[in-house]
Amino acid sequence: MNVQTLTINKERLEERITALSKIGKIGETGVCRLTLSKEDRQAVETVKGWMEEAGLTARIDHFGNLIGRWEGNNPDEPILMLGSHIDSQPYGGRFDGAIGVLGAIEVIQTMKENQIVPNQPIEVIAFSDEEGCRFNKGLFGVRGILGKLEEGELERKDKDGVTRREALIEFGCDPSKFKESEYPKGSIGSFLEMHIEQGPVLESMDKPIGIVSGISGPLWLTVELEGFAGHAGSVPMPMRKDALVGAAKIIVALNEIASQEPGAPTAGTVGSLRVFPDSRNIIPEKVSFTVDLRDIDINRRHRLEAQLRDKIKEITEEHQLLCKITEDTNSEPRYCAEWIKEIMRNEMKQIGLEPMELMSGPFHDSLAMSYECDYGMIFVRCKDGISHNPKEYSTFEDISLGTELLYRTTVKMAQE
Amino acid sequence: MNVQTLTINKERLEERITALSKIGKIGETGVCRLTLSKEDRQAVETVKGWMEEAGLTARIDHFGNLIGRWEGNNPDEPILMLGSHIDSQPYGGRFDGAIGVLGAIEVIQTMKENQIVPNQPIEVIAFSDEEGCRFNKGLFGVRGILGKLEEGELERKDKDGVTRREALIEFGCDPSKFKESEYPKGSIGSFLEMHIEQGPVLESMDKPIGIVSGISGPLWLTVELEGFAGHAGSVPMPMRKDALVGAAKIIVALNEIASQEPGAPTAGTVGSLRVFPDSRNIIPEKVSFTVDLRDIDINRRHRLEAQLRDKIKEITEEHQLLCKITEDTNSEPRYCAEWIKEIMRNEMKQIGLEPMELMSGPFHDSLAMSYECDYGMIFVRCKDGISHNPKEYSTFEDISLGTELLYRTTVKMAQE
Repeated sequence: MNVQTLTINKERLEERITALSKIGKIGETGVCRLTLSKEDRQAVETVKGWMEEAGLTARIDHFGNLIGRWEGNNPDEPILMLGSHIDSQPYGGRFDGAIGVLGAIEVIQTMKENQIVPNQPIEVIAFSDEEGCRFNKGLFGVRGILGKLEEGELERKDKDGVTRREALIEFGCDPSKFKESEYPKGSIGSFLEMHIEQGPVLESMDKPIGIVSGISGPLWLTVELEGFAGHAGSVPMPMRKDALVGAAKIIVALNEIASQEPGAPTAGTVGSLRVFPDSRNIIPEKVSFTVDLRDIDINRRHRLEAQLRDKIKEITEEHQLLCKITEDTNSEPRYCAEWIKEIMRNEMKQIGLEPMELMSGPFHDSLAMSYECDYGMIFVRCKDGISHNPKEYSTFEDISLGTELLYRTTVKMAQE
Repeated sequence: MNVQTLTINKERLEERITALSKIGKIGETGVCRLTLSKEDRQAVETVKGWMEEAGLTARIDHFGNLIGRWEGNNPDEPILMLGSHIDSQPYGGRFDGAIGVLGAIEVIQTMKENQIVPNQPIEVIAFSDEEGCRFNKGLFGVRGILGKLEEGELERKDKDGVTRREALIEFGCDPSKFKESEYPKGSIGSFLEMHIEQGPVLESMDKPIGIVSGISGPLWLTVELEGFAGHAGSVPMPMRKDALVGAAKIIVALNEIASQEPGAPTAGTVGSLRVFPDSRNIIPEKVSFTVDLRDIDINRRHRLEAQLRDKIKEITEEHQLLCKITEDTNSEPRYCAEWIKEIMRNEMKQIGLEPMELMSGPFHDSLAMSYECDYGMIFVRCKDGISHNPKEYSTFEDISLGTELLYRTTVKMAQE
């Protein structure tokens, strides 16, 4: 297929992404814009200026969200919301959610330039604290506007002992006025988000952009095994209760279980593991490790979880290990709206790209939005699947194609 | 077989072991007597008193070793040395090497009571800092008398910043006079050590004591694997380079390799393991872990090491991991003298016990002595193989049987 000429302004988009990447810049290509930091504030002010350039009425709410509004032809209709986030990990990259916010602004500016007025209000939002790395709990801004903050969130401290409440006040927000910044139930009609893929699927399939099928919530388990310590030189092999050998067999088993269906997007990972006493000449007495199991098909995930639990039972019995499994998180997959995906598929063909869908392993602001309204997501190919790292990279060509699809999808939804 | 009446004085031995266990006592049954500490000094003084009670001429040398000497009939003959150590791990037990020192004193006292005078000088020694936990390097006293200290050992610091030099001076030693405390080459004829097994072999075979065949030096490797990090939810299974999955397969392989010959004393252990970045939703990029491989048969150990290295190569290739293997220690097995073992076998029969031999996985002061003279070792059964822990336990019956064998072996060697 031949890719059609872009409607959006690639140069303008590129300039803004490049300008934003200089705020909180680390090294040549990295970014550190922790939520509610000085750098975050500077970035929010800069992006607010671009929103105003695009013709939006912009404001910062009490959660720290930056919101630009376009009333459209029917200001009382449910809002079509577009956006993502511009805060970053401490050792983060330039693209991540930033392309979703700047892409959305580009969409509005292009619509205005083309004299397209939406049938509903459109808001572009840069959500506060998607990353969650500063106060160890993310999706703050999006949960805030939906009235879904939890007890004690304002008292969470960063590593310097600053509470989120203090950081919000420093940022110019007033936590006592959160209610004023909440959106009434039903006031948001739908949500669109563009984000880099943060994985290697598009790259491996040679596709610049993809339509997200849904966000596969993870099952998070912690497995604790207890055997019996002993001197590495004096306990004969058949008498051992080695917790690390048991853990190793479970790690191998999880890898096999998650790989058993070729082509399935199932992902099974042990990312963290601790050994006690962790001494080179002592047989490991205790090992604890995490399990992360994801699948967009919740029934398959349940089946694989059952297989894993059977395997853990079998292995711990064989090695005479005590075993405790704790369920830390059990999220269900949240599917993108079929009607939005259908618009995206058609528009991809119009652009001259073959539609393709892929699952999102990581969560996004869209995850919280999915409980409020229909949503759609566009992924942009990124190099080697790297994200949350200065090496994170997407080409401006791919970002422009993603923005073009976001534009076309928005126009279609705005004209319905 | 019926166990013969003991020659040694079980009550006296028991009283001394009990009395010594009160110095540095922790909890009901634990001991903390770090080398060169106040508690160690008090213990050395107490044991020195018992040496003198037994008729030995006792002194503390410049390495902190406590040495009691009996000239015997031929003071210029090579010394028959008996002993072990009385320093402990920070969270240690009452028995460990202490039974070897107090048992040796009991041997001398019984010989004197039975008017047996040795044909060579006998020395009983409580070596300084066998454990090595305070300055992270052990076998200090024994290496000291053999002139085998290494560069910089006196500058090693404990966790409070005290150097070994300072601790030695505080203890009453004079590091500038080390030379005076060294033993000339050839001056020690043979060495006997009794120690708790620190393993479960004797218990599992229902044997109170055993003759050590040798100390199997370990092969210590550090294996570092490097794959590629990525989000646990977004990198499809077939595209992963998961360093922890690779490590897990190697751990399972080592366990199989070390278990393949039924009845062999081979021991293979991964005791320590680190994951980077050790985050539950990031695929492990780097894993490093230790390998401890031991066998009293060095040829078999070499064969198994080669198998392991082949397996590591195969696994890292399969998972596209970079691999670096560092050899940290490569000790050869040190065999006990056949002629001493033969005496022990005969004497065990005399006592009414069926002789049995077992390998020592852990090292002991005997390891250093083995490079100087012939040596023999007696192991005493300990409960559940536990050592270096307050739960460490041997019965006084078993310790007395070990001491009886030590006595009979010493008498035979002293009368040759």
